[in-house]
Amino acid sequence: MAKKDEKLKIIPLGGLNEIGKNMTVFEYKNEIIVVDCGLSFPEDEMLGIDVVIPDITYLLKNREKVKAIVLTHGHEDHIGALPYALKKINVPLYGTKLTLGLVENKLREHRMLGDVNMNIVKPGDIRNLGVFSVEFIKTSHSIPDAVSLAIDTPLGKIIHTGDFKIDYTPIDGDIINLHRFAQLGSEGVLALLADSTNVERPGYTMSERTVGETFENLFKNVDSRIIVATFASNVHRIQQVINAAYTFNRKVAFSGRSMVNVANAAMELGYLNVPDGMHIDINDLNRYPDNEIVVITTGSQGEPMAALSRMASSEHRKMDIQPGDMVIISATPIPGNEIKVSNVINLLFEKGANVIYESLADVHVSGHACQEELKLIHSLVKPKYFIPVHGEYRHLRHHASLAESLGMSRENIFVANNGKIIEITSDEARISGSVDSGNILVDGLGVGDVGNIVLRDRKHLSEDGLMVVVVTISKEDGKVMSGPDIVSRGFVYVRESEDLIDGAKIVVREALKKCEDNNIKEWAVLKSAIKDSLKGYLYERTKRRPMILPIIMEV
Amino acid sequence: MAKKDEKLKIIPLGGLNEIGKNMTVFEYKNEIIVVDCGLSFPEDEMLGIDVVIPDITYLLKNREKVKAIVLTHGHEDHIGALPYALKKINVPLYGTKLTLGLVENKLREHRMLGDVNMNIVKPGDIRNLGVFSVEFIKTSHSIPDAVSLAIDTPLGKIIHTGDFKIDYTPIDGDIINLHRFAQLGSEGVLALLADSTNVERPGYTMSERTVGETFENLFKNVDSRIIVATFASNVHRIQQVINAAYTFNRKVAFSGRSMVNVANAAMELGYLNVPDGMHIDINDLNRYPDNEIVVITTGSQGEPMAALSRMASSEHRKMDIQPGDMVIISATPIPGNEIKVSNVINLLFEKGANVIYESLADVHVSGHACQEELKLIHSLVKPKYFIPVHGEYRHLRHHASLAESLGMSRENIFVANNGKIIEITSDEARISGSVDSGNILVDGLGVGDVGNIVLRDRKHLSEDGLMVVVVTISKEDGKVMSGPDIVSRGFVYVRESEDLIDGAKIVVREALKKCEDNNIKEWAVLKSAIKDSLKGYLYERTKRRPMILPIIMEV
Repeated sequence: MAKKDEKLKIIPLGGLNEIGKNMTVFEYKNEIIVVDCGLSFPEDEMLGIDVVIPDITYLLKNREKVKAIVLTHGHEDHIGALPYALKKINVPLYGTKLTLGLVENKLREHRMLGDVNMNIVKPGDIRNLGVFSVEFIKTSHSIPDAVSLAIDTPLGKIIHTGDFKIDYTPIDGDIINLHRFAQLGSEGVLALLADSTNVERPGYTMSERTVGETFENLFKNVDSRIIVATFASNVHRIQQVINAAYTFNRKVAFSGRSMVNVANAAMELGYLNVPDGMHIDINDLNRYPDNEIVVITTGSQGEPMAALSRMASSEHRKMDIQPGDMVIISATPIPGNEIKVSNVINLLFEKGANVIYESLADVHVSGHACQEELKLIHSLVKPKYFIPVHGEYRHLRHHASLAESLGMSRENIFVANNGKIIEITSDEARISGSVDSGNILVDGLGVGDVGNIVLRDRKHLSEDGLMVVVVTISKEDGKVMSGPDIVSRGFVYVRESEDLIDGAKIVVREALKKCEDNNIKEWAVLKSAIKDSLKGYLYERTKRRPMILPIIMEV
Repeated sequence: MAKKDEKLKIIPLGGLNEIGKNMTVFEYKNEIIVVDCGLSFPEDEMLGIDVVIPDITYLLKNREKVKAIVLTHGHEDHIGALPYALKKINVPLYGTKLTLGLVENKLREHRMLGDVNMNIVKPGDIRNLGVFSVEFIKTSHSIPDAVSLAIDTPLGKIIHTGDFKIDYTPIDGDIINLHRFAQLGSEGVLALLADSTNVERPGYTMSERTVGETFENLFKNVDSRIIVATFASNVHRIQQVINAAYTFNRKVAFSGRSMVNVANAAMELGYLNVPDGMHIDINDLNRYPDNEIVVITTGSQGEPMAALSRMASSEHRKMDIQPGDMVIISATPIPGNEIKVSNVINLLFEKGANVIYESLADVHVSGHACQEELKLIHSLVKPKYFIPVHGEYRHLRHHASLAESLGMSRENIFVANNGKIIEITSDEARISGSVDSGNILVDGLGVGDVGNIVLRDRKHLSEDGLMVVVVTISKEDGKVMSGPDIVSRGFVYVRESEDLIDGAKIVVREALKKCEDNNIKEWAVLKSAIKDSLKGYLYERTKRRPMILPIIMEV
């Protein structure tokens, strides 16, 4: 039992006030374990950025304390930052078979597979990680092999749900282990960290199985090819497509790099069951009649480079959409992707496809718990403290209200921020300070080298383009020797705007003349004079503000 | 009656396969009338663009034929392109009082108010415009004074619904004139053009009045200030906020430029009824207790510069959000705005506001007809030909299917594109060709001067920034006199990447040296050499591809 002055620290490094890059630190004295290590996708204003990962400065400062990273499931927002983190702090990983299978793919791409210590666990397993012991509890989510964690600490047990839903008829047959949640609740739980994604939705999330029924109904009377787009990681969804295909004597082909990768991994590891002879290569489609074909593809989010978009715009090397094809988009647009998805739907319709999507049929269910499911977990677990995680501020706030409505007192609920230290002693819990946290932007090979200044410049350039002004100046007397030469990009179509550019040259010459008349020779002043005069001139003529880059060359 | 060889042409110049910039041409012999003249908002890839307007080349080529522009209602996607169009082709406008009131505001901003011939009409009026006569029919929409048009032509009557819904309990008391649609249907309608926006939604759109009931329920037990964000043009919505405020003894202030403008115009023209003494200035808010205040504001789409966003981020000069404020977002995010709206909701919650939005209460209804309403109009009008308008391809396609399901034969339905000529004779209708059409991009004062090259450059710049390389070369012997100098923006944070830039200079010097050794002096070749060598070097080092701008100065 912990002494009175002993402290447990819970520090979210990601996943709070945002959707994505989930990562939480649990610290007791000299020992740390980390739950998940996810990435998020760039916001609109993060121009040119590939992915966003959590700031792990705190872990690097406490490098020798970190015992392990424990994973709840294999989605990008829970495992996607691992290659970047492990390059800096290589600690053992713990996760279920499919989760680590997907991590393996990722590490292979980063050429660091052999360097990482990976430990496969099963639901029900308990692993001792220093002072902590972590129990893995079976749950349901939109990817198989998802687990909640019960973390035993010297101060008591903590449950971290991970992403979950309650599905009484899951595709893999094993329902979320409600008994274990109940048992832990009876024994006493110090704190609950729970998924807030769907807290604004009343009622229950439907069972994954309901989508299978929709597939059966859709497949029933169709003679054309069937193309189903969904998330590559949604293996249960893919299984249901395969089941429906089997029922109606169709072969199945996979399309899209991540779909092929995940399907192969899932088949190898036994998570996807494809009867012998049913799986065909996409190159062999034309060997079969239309009514014997199902293609399962990426691109359900309208990603322009994904297979479905390429089919829709005739840029797919292996197949095109033909009139009459039934295309099922078995997903909901993630906020921000609505227009991209809509564009793909329009293209598909224009090619004569019969497109089925969420507003027309029940072709998707969420992987996250709605209000009634959350209430069940809260009621079973009966935690002393509650920390809503995995959500924007509005979700965390609503989840806190939900807990209050079930009888928790407000001072035991912590709506925190990334980087906040939630410190629990035997007496109390409080936010005791904060550590470094935030968004590290990954752009190509650069991790963290694109900051606010670079992004601000990209934004400026994206809106009005730029104008470069070059002037050559004599080393001896500071007089202009050649120029101004002007080059613009992204501003106006130059061939049609010659007199605008000519006018700009005159404006720059006048500005330089004025400097010369006043015997001004400092480059900084000359540059400002060029910039200011040009800015005014261009705004008056065009009401635009391109970036102006004056360059002085001395000869 | 028309002779056998006489033709009526219907040419949509905007609004087909897109949401926005609605504009349709009706042409008979030497006479043209135009219905609506709207703008659309730029798509994501139209970087830096302010608005998009239709290509009116066809009207300019047939300048002397154009008799009038007839307006269905005052939304931007129906009147927003007028200032640009009227500058090129100044023809009389016809529209209802509020519609023309909003056009007036717009023309005043463009300083061309005195130059335009505006003719106010009332529902029920008929105007003879050359060979055409246009009847204005009362409808309901999310702005008052919306009308459908019955256009009498030598070949028969054409009904253009404009944007509409069927509201049996509208706020202004006058319901859509179903009797007139029925009568016209009995007499025989040649063609119907109808709003397709909500064709994917089953059932009926709820009455605007239901939102008023929600307001009453929300206002009932609240002691805090109430802030309602909605579309400035939704005058009936604003009226209902005022009514609820009146019921609970609250004053009303307006916030946001367009809200103030529209509210003033609507009060002046009698479309908004505010009891004496109830309307207060936003500067006077602090003279009243919290429970006597309602603020009606812009910003329901999360627009970063609108009043609500500025309140949420403490950048509003007149008011801040205080803990306990009830903020009602009485709108649905327009596709593409979901994340912006969500960001504002999060900021408001963080300030301690109680935020009410669509997923939590019925605070918004659509202004467009759903499937059952569309079926009613089709059934009353019984047109010979049908042209779905106002929608993306998926909407037009579904609207065509809806018409077919009601018994129309497929060959009488025209799912067209902008620019297509739908030619109707006494015998038949067919698509007989096409005219210029498309997107004209407006950026600042430039109309149409930003094209694909400029946009492609902006996109390139936005993703990886740029690197400018300047070299000075001797006029006499072509030898490098100074440089290479390198300036980059939006690429890497230069102070932290000095050795990358130093390396780049070495690469450029080597490329130039090689040219010199081979006695190459053509600038184009030198520039290519600089570009190619640098491109390879930078990609290898960073996996990024900034725009490279080589500039050679001769001295």
